[in-house]
Amino acid sequence: MTSEGVSKVLFTPIVEESVSSRSKVTVVGVGQVGMACAYSILNQNIANEIALYDVVADKVKGEMMDLQHGLVFCKPVKISAGTDFEVTSGSRVIIVTAGARQREGESRLDLVQRNTDIFKNIIPPLVKNSPDALLLIVSNPVDILTFVAWKLSGLPKNRVIGSGTNLDSSRFRFLMSEKLHVAPASLHGYIIGEHGDTSVATTSDIPYKVPVWSGVNVAGVRLLDIYPNLVDESNPEKWADLHMQVVNSAYEIIKLKGYTNLAIGLSVASITKALLGNTRAVKPVSTLVKGFYGIQDEVYLSLPCVLGSQGVTSVVNLTLNAQETDQLVKSAQKLQNVQSQIKF
Amino acid sequence: MTSEGVSKVLFTPIVEESVSSRSKVTVVGVGQVGMACAYSILNQNIANEIALYDVVADKVKGEMMDLQHGLVFCKPVKISAGTDFEVTSGSRVIIVTAGARQREGESRLDLVQRNTDIFKNIIPPLVKNSPDALLLIVSNPVDILTFVAWKLSGLPKNRVIGSGTNLDSSRFRFLMSEKLHVAPASLHGYIIGEHGDTSVATTSDIPYKVPVWSGVNVAGVRLLDIYPNLVDESNPEKWADLHMQVVNSAYEIIKLKGYTNLAIGLSVASITKALLGNTRAVKPVSTLVKGFYGIQDEVYLSLPCVLGSQGVTSVVNLTLNAQETDQLVKSAQKLQNVQSQIKF
Amino acid sequence: MTSEGVSKVLFTPIVEESVSSRSKVTVVGVGQVGMACAYSILNQNIANEIALYDVVADKVKGEMMDLQHGLVFCKPVKISAGTDFEVTSGSRVIIVTAGARQREGESRLDLVQRNTDIFKNIIPPLVKNSPDALLLIVSNPVDILTFVAWKLSGLPKNRVIGSGTNLDSSRFRFLMSEKLHVAPASLHGYIIGEHGDTSVATTSDIPYKVPVWSGVNVAGVRLLDIYPNLVDESNPEKWADLHMQVVNSAYEIIKLKGYTNLAIGLSVASITKALLGNTRAVKPVSTLVKGFYGIQDEVYLSLPCVLGSQGVTSVVNLTLNAQETDQLVKSAQKLQNVQSQIKF
Amino acid sequence: MTSEGVSKVLFTPIVEESVSSRSKVTVVGVGQVGMACAYSILNQNIANEIALYDVVADKVKGEMMDLQHGLVFCKPVKISAGTDFEVTSGSRVIIVTAGARQREGESRLDLVQRNTDIFKNIIPPLVKNSPDALLLIVSNPVDILTFVAWKLSGLPKNRVIGSGTNLDSSRFRFLMSEKLHVAPASLHGYIIGEHGDTSVATTSDIPYKVPVWSGVNVAGVRLLDIYPNLVDESNPEKWADLHMQVVNSAYEIIKLKGYTNLAIGLSVASITKALLGNTRAVKPVSTLVKGFYGIQDEVYLSLPCVLGSQGVTSVVNLTLNAQETDQLVKSAQKLQNVQSQIKF
Repeated sequence: MTSEGVSKVLFTPIVEESVSSRSKVTVVGVGQVGMACAYSILNQNIANEIALYDVVADKVKGEMMDLQHGLVFCKPVKISAGTDFEVTSGSRVIIVTAGARQREGESRLDLVQRNTDIFKNIIPPLVKNSPDALLLIVSNPVDILTFVAWKLSGLPKNRVIGSGTNLDSSRFRFLMSEKLHVAPASLHGYIIGEHGDTSVATTSDIPYKVPVWSGVNVAGVRLLDIYPNLVDESNPEKWADLHMQVVNSAYEIIKLKGYTNLAIGLSVASITKALLGNTRAVKPVSTLVKGFYGIQDEVYLSLPCVLGSQGVTSVVNLTLNAQETDQLVKSAQKLQNVQSQIKF
Repeated sequence: MTSEGVSKVLFTPIVEESVSSRSKVTVVGVGQVGMACAYSILNQNIANEIALYDVVADKVKGEMMDLQHGLVFCKPVKISAGTDFEVTSGSRVIIVTAGARQREGESRLDLVQRNTDIFKNIIPPLVKNSPDALLLIVSNPVDILTFVAWKLSGLPKNRVIGSGTNLDSSRFRFLMSEKLHVAPASLHGYIIGEHGDTSVATTSDIPYKVPVWSGVNVAGVRLLDIYPNLVDESNPEKWADLHMQVVNSAYEIIKLKGYTNLAIGLSVASITKALLGNTRAVKPVSTLVKGFYGIQDEVYLSLPCVLGSQGVTSVVNLTLNAQETDQLVKSAQKLQNVQSQIKF
Repeated sequence: MTSEGVSKVLFTPIVEESVSSRSKVTVVGVGQVGMACAYSILNQNIANEIALYDVVADKVKGEMMDLQHGLVFCKPVKISAGTDFEVTSGSRVIIVTAGARQREGESRLDLVQRNTDIFKNIIPPLVKNSPDALLLIVSNPVDILTFVAWKLSGLPKNRVIGSGTNLDSSRFRFLMSEKLHVAPASLHGYIIGEHGDTSVATTSDIPYKVPVWSGVNVAGVRLLDIYPNLVDESNPEKWADLHMQVVNSAYEIIKLKGYTNLAIGLSVASITKALLGNTRAVKPVSTLVKGFYGIQDEVYLSLPCVLGSQGVTSVVNLTLNAQETDQLVKSAQKLQNVQSQIKF
Repeated sequence: MTSEGVSKVLFTPIVEESVSSRSKVTVVGVGQVGMACAYSILNQNIANEIALYDVVADKVKGEMMDLQHGLVFCKPVKISAGTDFEVTSGSRVIIVTAGARQREGESRLDLVQRNTDIFKNIIPPLVKNSPDALLLIVSNPVDILTFVAWKLSGLPKNRVIGSGTNLDSSRFRFLMSEKLHVAPASLHGYIIGEHGDTSVATTSDIPYKVPVWSGVNVAGVRLLDIYPNLVDESNPEKWADLHMQVVNSAYEIIKLKGYTNLAIGLSVASITKALLGNTRAVKPVSTLVKGFYGIQDEVYLSLPCVLGSQGVTSVVNLTLNAQETDQLVKSAQKLQNVQSQIKF
């Protein structure tokens, strides 16, 4: 790709340019979700190198070219892509969006097994090519697949993270901000537990995605303190319904437009920024929760975590009530039940 | 959507909040291109209100929700959407990506007529709801459809602009930057004439998309000056081939991934930024070229334009050689030939 | 300043460029504080026009030129400056940093009177030239001078705002974030009441700058809930001392470097962004507090406010304990006492 | 600084946070120039760690605190400071703004010698603490002091860079953009040769700061091509005067406001961004010019350079006319004459 002739006349070389990059991000899987992640990271200038990996050569090349053709309009970033893991080499953060979708009639376990089989082929070579990378899993069901990636990677738990309920929490805050007419960023609240735009643990109509109402606040004023019947069914403002709206958000958007990609892309970009920038930002992401709230099993669920260049450096100890704790524990059991049947 | 109960306890109202916005952008058509534009504008915080308009109610609602759910991760922006033109009211820039795609066996003229019929239904109500807006047309064939929009809008020519060869120029600069190992932003060059990822004028294998080689430079050093046989066929570096690579870029990406959206989204965001910010940036966009280079017809083609809050405030007078001028003139004639058959 | 000759050859004019700007910000007073505000606003691309006003012609011209010479490195902004109020015309936000400093031996009241006399000469012409502007007062003592500006301006209270304890709160959060090793943006807390890097109400060693400990939280976990003796004197971690560290911050920095400017510049830029962007962000700024917490007087003090293009649109009703309420009320009385002696 | 008690309750630790930083920048010297550099880098989020070094303990601590107190309003960055070189450890880019100012009656050589003596004390320990860093020298006279820093550092020439005429070129482009009513970023042109807001080589009224008129262009249209008498004295538009305006800019601003800092801060931030981001951007910076245009001496002068994480990776070969070449050569001789008298 060099151009000896013109270059030779135009430039006097001084030293070889460096090919290594201090903030390389790889996106594995270039479907709608993967490309929304890559596009947000490019738009926001979060990384100075973005690599795309996929098994479909045409698709991954097309997406690479489409990004490259817009580089004049961006702060400088290097874009590479390929079907060979070498293109991912030296990444600091690897975002995994690859994975099969549920087939009609397919059991959840079968789906998990199929995606585990896919991960068997990609996680080891990804880690081999980027031994210092953090793994950020986005593929669904994200909590189980983050566990699978952790197992397959051999990495310490802090370096394998699921995008988790960072998105659910964002949906929750947006919905509340609309009720209160304040900026979403000025209204704080967390959804913890199981993400799952394709939920696994949810086998009844009680989802294991837990809104921590006690922490919801504006300027430090807890809504539950000033309005104790906030989430009562009798409250005509129907705040309790926000929970189910969050649970159903993905399904509704999929019904309306066929898939979700834009919000998850922004969510993943925000996590990536915290990891690359070593910022110590607190975000709800999927982490190994064995030992928290009496959970005995090796499962991943979302809790507010302090993020940095080592991945999850601490977990915030939320003060949960009995019901919230119970939901977490039951969710963990269901996940463990599925995980125990996975063939590695 | 207000929440009297909690709000009443939480806030003391001082004054009604303002609903008007000083930098509202509407995106018409929420396909892959429209949403790439909206997503880039959100990611780059270019507007403080983004409205989506489409005739497909489900789709436009789904895209709105998907953007809204990511707002926590962005600087504050208001997102609205609908199938009613009222949602577009008070826009400063309206980006039109709506339009039919070419059916198999359909003639170009038939496609233009079908899109003209679509524009008849959308351009007048858009202008009525935002009488001060600039129209930025992205739908293809962009040069003819910008002319159509101009005719239908009744707006002065400076306020109706086509995204034009801003993208082709970006592709051109990226390809050259790869040859020379410099940042795309440090290598300057323009493609003028007809854009057309679905080209209309191109009926032979000579496209009317003109690379202005005489202006290509790095740090003011013109490549043609230091390497006179730059675009000769005999040049082993094959610089002349870059022209055809640019011409074929869209086709190649469509073949590889099915459509193009990412680079055009970034290109449109960059034009929108110049228009909203009244920046006087020079960009190659499609403008009415009657009177330039001896062109007699009312056609739109891309030339480097100075952009501001009035749209195109000046056109840069390029020094073209005979061949380049000839290509522009012939392109204009072909466009005029098609335009003369459109039924308004 | 036009250049007929070359321009005439280089450009074909299409339409007059617009001179009006949708996001013009004026900075009044180009000392260290005013220029830190202007520089942050330029660096962060918050406004598309920045006007500098000062009575010292040389200084204001020098600062304008120094900003203009860096414009190539910024997103496009227009910079103007002068000693005539016409240069401020059409502003959306006017940041007032002008004002005299305390002379040795001068009483606080004398200082306030001197600055009131200065404001008499600038507030009316500023409002006359920008009748739709929001006034953002930064000059100290900020709470009293915001009251003075409100009185002199004839504007509704929501449109006259003091930068207030937005900076104190930032200092508070930074100091706590250092103790807890989390990002300052992930640790929430508010200082309310009187700002005053040159405090007026503080006549004893009990400053009327109130940390709302009950609202201090990480991820919605209130520190007081999990660590009830947080601010007890017996706590070896000395959290209570953070209050006095915040109170003394300005004095300490002035002792060390002679003045404070960098943090206040960033604080003012963040308020300006919320106002221009109509974002509904919640920030602690100085607002008219008559009617809050039993305060009877027309005084300005800082409370968390919802900000938008109308200025302060709501005030968050904090749940304060008796001591905190008492401090606010006493602070109001002291300010009223000073204000009643001002000669308008 | 840790807080065992509250932290222990609030967090469950997972892994030690990383203290190393992938984009640490050190600013040496915290005067007006150094702090404008640091403030721009913070505002633009260019680095994720900024260290300040100065010999004046109070001043450097005050500036650190003032930056830290604004961190809530910024994307996360770590700020450190001190009088010990250890605080600079692990930097990727070191910006040197330290240096004495010319005393009244002091000869240029004496000034250079005094600053060389300062550099002897700082350059070796800086390099020792950050063996992989790039040195970016800003202190004046910048070309000679960059040579001095190179000699003292023992680093390869590509890794020692002077901020050079990046600022002069920016001033040049701004002045031309005002004449032509286009965005400064859309008007290209270079000043090469000697920077020197405190010029050394300029002993007569012919400064060795060379505007390369042949490269000045808008959209690739060279002004000299379309207006051949552009810089003739007879041209009533007085374009030739822009050269002297650029030469005199620093002096004029110093006369007006006492010093220059804002534009140089933005200029240095832009160079730092290119170096950290490995962007291959082309910028005019001071580099070792031995071997260029017949220059025999080891002197630093500004030429357009390709910048990346290795520093200067190539120099653009400008096509200069006899007069321009002569000015460069003479400038080099004068610098060499001064340099030969420096006592290392």
